[in-house]
Order: sequence, then structure tokens, then C-alpha cells
Amino acid sequence: MKILVINAGSSSLKYQLIDMTTEDVLAKGLCERIGIEGSRLKHRPIGKDEIVIESPMPTHAAAVDLVIKALTDGDYGVIKDMSEINAIGHRVVHGGELFNGSVIINDEVKQALVLCSDLAPLHNPANLIGIEACEKAMPGVVQVGVFDTAFHQTMPKEAYTYAIPYEYYEKYKIRKYGFHGTSHKYVTIRAAEMLGKDINDINIITCHLGNGSSMTAVKNGKSVDTTMGFTPLAGVPMGTRCCDIDPAILTFLMEKEGLTAAEIDNILNKKSGVFGVSQLSSDFRDLSEARAKGDEKAALAENMFMYAVKKCIGQYMAVLGRVDAIVFTAGVGENNAEGREMIMDGLEFLGAKIDPVKNNRRGGEFEASADDSKIKIFVISTNEELMIAKETLALL
Amino acid sequence: MKILVINAGSSSLKYQLIDMTTEDVLAKGLCERIGIEGSRLKHRPIGKDEIVIESPMPTHAAAVDLVIKALTDGDYGVIKDMSEINAIGHRVVHGGELFNGSVIINDEVKQALVLCSDLAPLHNPANLIGIEACEKAMPGVVQVGVFDTAFHQTMPKEAYTYAIPYEYYEKYKIRKYGFHGTSHKYVTIRAAEMLGKDINDINIITCHLGNGSSMTAVKNGKSVDTTMGFTPLAGVPMGTRCCDIDPAILTFLMEKEGLTAAEIDNILNKKSGVFGVSQLSSDFRDLSEARAKGDEKAALAENMFMYAVKKCIGQYMAVLGRVDAIVFTAGVGENNAEGREMIMDGLEFLGAKIDPVKNNRRGGEFEASADDSKIKIFVISTNEELMIAKETLALL
Repeated sequence: MKILVINAGSSSLKYQLIDMTTEDVLAKGLCERIGIEGSRLKHRPIGKDEIVIESPMPTHAAAVDLVIKALTDGDYGVIKDMSEINAIGHRVVHGGELFNGSVIINDEVKQALVLCSDLAPLHNPANLIGIEACEKAMPGVVQVGVFDTAFHQTMPKEAYTYAIPYEYYEKYKIRKYGFHGTSHKYVTIRAAEMLGKDINDINIITCHLGNGSSMTAVKNGKSVDTTMGFTPLAGVPMGTRCCDIDPAILTFLMEKEGLTAAEIDNILNKKSGVFGVSQLSSDFRDLSEARAKGDEKAALAENMFMYAVKKCIGQYMAVLGRVDAIVFTAGVGENNAEGREMIMDGLEFLGAKIDPVKNNRRGGEFEASADDSKIKIFVISTNEELMIAKETLALL
Repeated sequence: MKILVINAGSSSLKYQLIDMTTEDVLAKGLCERIGIEGSRLKHRPIGKDEIVIESPMPTHAAAVDLVIKALTDGDYGVIKDMSEINAIGHRVVHGGELFNGSVIINDEVKQALVLCSDLAPLHNPANLIGIEACEKAMPGVVQVGVFDTAFHQTMPKEAYTYAIPYEYYEKYKIRKYGFHGTSHKYVTIRAAEMLGKDINDINIITCHLGNGSSMTAVKNGKSVDTTMGFTPLAGVPMGTRCCDIDPAILTFLMEKEGLTAAEIDNILNKKSGVFGVSQLSSDFRDLSEARAKGDEKAALAENMFMYAVKKCIGQYMAVLGRVDAIVFTAGVGENNAEGREMIMDGLEFLGAKIDPVKNNRRGGEFEASADDSKIKIFVISTNEELMIAKETLALL
């Protein structure tokens, strides 16, 4: 059983072909500059060299054709022909309130995705184009939509409602949705295994910390609160996103600087976060390096981020009551051992104690908590593609 | 030693005359509609009947003259003449980064207040008018400015910096200031006494919950974080204020509804909060009543508020590590026993356990925690006017 996982952007398309018998990745790659001059495919068959194919890709359908050609190529292919692909799993960013789980794609689902596009105008239309390109290139193959928002659809109303006039929820569906759901779900399943408990019995806090960051309170295996909101701008500070700030700052700045809504939106999404504070970089590796050389703003940006994550852990402890584990995942969460120490520092009173030696590792799956810590601290490498493939398999 | 406490608004002026020997209030009152037709003074000498004096008050100076006349009146006055007023303490909303404590007002201070006015354009100019009116009516009497922001000036940089481009802090001083500082300081002092500890040794979480709400993490007697931000719009949901929301909601709504910055600002300040969600009232008593009759939106508004406060308690537990007490104050905090129970429900794991019987009281000063609660839960009636008078006295 082989499943192709597709993550389509407006001018890009990422893929992985996964053999579900072993859960091994057979090949993965990326089509860049679709519909733009200079488009190319980077294809990496596992165990062989990466190749770069420069070829025009006027449409996503052309890109999918090229992917299939690469996957079935005599030299750098990994399957004999297209018929070996049993199903396709698509990452879809926004399922709104319509999807609380993965779904086999049909015309009705596609219409619903169009309805959700208003909530994710940059992402959903691209996801839909990816789906239609696959339908054209591989007619008859089952396609599944796996939503970034679906895992969070179990949040109670008091967690997802904003304190704004209720008619905006009714009219525009403005509420907290949360994102990174596939990642939060994946590490939740792994954490249950590491705890040796049934997933329905675990209370955990998952910290997906990367260039985009979000944290989730998981109660009895289900998301009950998460930091990202109506959009992925909210929550803890990110690479370039401002996260939760006093909303009055927007109107103050718009007036003082004569900015339009689109301009302030761009500043808060692209020029803020740790990049905005450090005035240096959105990459935590750069910040650590600069900090070591005495850069105060880099240190401030790092401190702010770690402080925000620490506060959110406390917040979710209050939400969950009993907490079995705190899980770190994604780029920063998996690889920044010093950052994890900074975050956990001072949380001993609340039952979570890190072991600096056990913590001093990068990536993989391991326990970083001290032996006498009531709450386990886990580092778990996320695998959204495998999660999408598993969701797809489950629907076949 | 008698101190007159003044809280001047743009068209109002509240006052209390306090005898500092006993800390008793001698009289209090309110001038309404200053500079507007139909202005009147409500004067309440303690132990006597309230009287309402309808009289033109074209300026704040005229209002102060009327207050002095009332205070020294043969029938409803409480002092013989003006010379009995030893000093005047003014509530000033915004001290920016310039004031980390109360200050005797002189020309330099007045100039600094003008500089801070950009940060509180509705409040600081009115406070300054109140100061100048008192200077005119009571020349030579010492006047002291007590700032809502001063108590929070001990916050560390990672707590008060926003994840937005750093130049906005440099250019406009956009940062977290926090408000209600006089109230948070007052209950901190009282909590130290109730704990029987030195104020410099206590770690507490103060919850000022009223029509405007804010919460503060107090470490070793000093504010290290607070929920209100650059303005009093931020933090937990309030009567009509939206608090922290995904900033992208502002730009989304501005575009969809064709709103200006001023219009969205007005919606988020005046039409949001529990009023916006319940579509009923900003008053928690109305919400409880409606909830009892089955009103779902009133219940949602109440639940959201309590949930946000609960989350913030967890947040500040993470900030403080060891917590000695959680303090509830202000209208909702003091009087809503059921609300306190809702907030504390589930926090037993974190060491805070409420006693429903001890908690079932309104106002005053009492302990509401169970005997085996590691963290004390106190209800303390706030007294900002007395705090202002004490600060004033300390500077004489």
C-alpha cells in the first residue's frame, strides 16, 4: 500500500510517497515556481542522489505529471508505474467548522472547500488546485483531504469564542480555529505510546515550535485549546509573526504611520516576531549565535519567545488540571535544547522538571524530564506527512 | 492630617476627603457634566445625607471651588475651612516610562505628563486639568500624582516588549504598561499582612475583576507581569472591551465591513467584551440572572470570562514558580462568589483549592481557600482612594 502525500501552495507543490507497510518514505520532493518562469522539480528518491529537473510547469497539473514521471522513472524512480499509488492524501489548511476530521474528496467536499476559502484566501484555493491537478493526472485514485484545523474542532465554545460582537461569528464565522492540527495530532499519538497509556486517557501540552509556532492543550486525547486563532498570526511570537498583542496597537500604528489595513497586516505577518524584535533574523540559530556575541536585541527576542511559551504551558496546566506530559516538536522544539531548558526553568513547582543531561539531544524521540518529575517532558520529531498518509489509509 | 483625593475625567471629577489618622473617609462625591449644561455635584458627607447641588461648572476650577464649598459648608461640610486639607493626591492614568512611583507635582512633572498624553489621549489631559484646577483653588497645597502604570514599571523587558518591529518601541514607546496599578499595589500590601509576611517575600497573583479587569503577577512584592497592555484594551475580556484577540481579526473586519481605524477601535472598546458576546449587558449580575433563565449567550459570556481568568492564573503560576496567594478584588472579584468558584475549579492540581463555604461571602477581606490548600485564596476589597492618600502622605 503506497500513498502519495501532497502539499500544494500557490506556486509550489511538495510531495512524499510513503510505503504504508513499513511507513518508509520512498521519495520526496518539491516543485517550485509553478506558473512562473524558471520552474523546477527537486526530486529525492530515498537511498539515491537528489536530482533537479528544470522543466516548464505552467500549471499544477503539469507539475503533478512531472512528479509521476519522476516517481516512475527507470533511473531515479521508486515505483514501476502510477498504478502502485493507492491513494493521495492532501494537506488542506482550513476546514472551517465544516470538517472535524479527514474526508474523502468528492464534489461536495470541493464545494465546501470553496466556502472555507474566505477564511484562508492564500492557502485553500492552492490546496484545491492541487486536488484538481491530481484528479486530472490520476483519475480514479482516491483522494483524501487532511485539515490543519480539524484536530482543534473539539475545542469547547468558551475556548474558541472571541470577546467581540457575537454577530461577527454568525456573519463571518470569526472564531478561534487553530492550525498545525496534523502535527499536534501526530505527537499526541506518539506521546500516548511513550506514556504507555490509551490516547483517550492522556492530558498533554503539545508545543509545536518552529518558524510558525503553536501550542495545544490536549485533554483525553482531544484538543481543548490552542494558541493560534482565527488565523495563524495569533498565539506565541513566531519567526516574523507578532502573535497576540494589544489590538489597540494596530489602530495606533495605522493612524500614526498612515498605514492601510493591508499594510499593517503585512508588517504584523512578515516583519514582526523575533525578526522584528531582534532586527536580525527569524531563525533561532542566528539569534543564539548573536546572543553569544553579546547582541542584546537577539537575546531579548529569544527571551520573549521562551517566556511566552513558558506562560502558555502554565495556562494550559490550568486548563487541563492533571498533565501527563509536555511535548516539544518542530524545528525549534526538537533541536533547541537550551531553549527547552529556558522554557522549563521555574516550572518545577508545577511538577515539571527537566534533566539537563537527558535534554541535551537533538531530534528523534526521547524523554527529557528528570526521574522525579511528575510531568514527563518529551521531545518528539513531528511527521505531518506520515500523519496525512495514515489518515488517508484509515479512510480507504 | 487630611488628604483630598481627586480623580478628574474630561467632564467629571470624583473626590474623597480622608482623615489619615484614622484612615476614615470624611466625605466623598462627584461633579458631573463639567463644561456641559446641567452640571451638578453629588456630595456625601459620611454619617449625613447625600445632597445634590445643581450649579453651573463651566470649568474644572469651578468644580473644585464647589467641592471646597461643600466640604466646608456649615450644614453638610466636614471641615471648618480649606486650610484643614493638608495635601491633594491625584489619580493619573499614564506615567509612561517616566514615572515608576508617585511624585510631588511641579512644573517639570506637568511637562512630563503632557509628554505622556500621547499614550492616554482621553485620560492624561483631563488629569492635568484637574491638577491645574486644584492649583488655582488651593494655591500652595502640596499635590501628588499617583499613576495607574507606576506599579508595573518593575516588569522585565521580556514581559513588556511586543513582538513587533523594535523601532515602534523606540519611536512611539509602544510596549506593555499595564493599568490598575494602584489597586494591584493596595491588595498586595493587604495580602502581605494577611499572609503575615514581609511584602518583599510574597509571590501572589492579583485579580482585579470589574467592568475593566486586569491581573498581575507579583514577585517579591513587585509587578513582574500584567494583563493590560499598551492600553487598557488588552488582557482578559471585560465589560465591553475585547481583550487579546488574533490581531488579524481587526484587518479582516475593517476590510469586510469597510471600517476605519477609529470605528474598529470603538467597536473593540465599547461594543465587545461580555456585552458583545451576550448581546445583553456588560454587568455580570445581569449575565448571571439571564443565565439562570437559560440564556445561552449570557452563559457563554460568563464562561469565557471565567475561563480566561483561570488560564491567566495558570500563566502567572508559571511566571512565579512559587505562589503564596491568589487575590480577588474589585466589583466582580469581591462580590461574585460563584464566579470565583468557576475560576478556581480544576486548579486543585496546581495547589489552589477553594472552600465553597468560606468563599460564600461578598466584599470585605477574607480567606476563601480550603484549609489544605497550599496556595491561599483571598478576597480583598480594593481601595484605590486610600492608596492614593497613603502615597500622598508618604511624599509629604
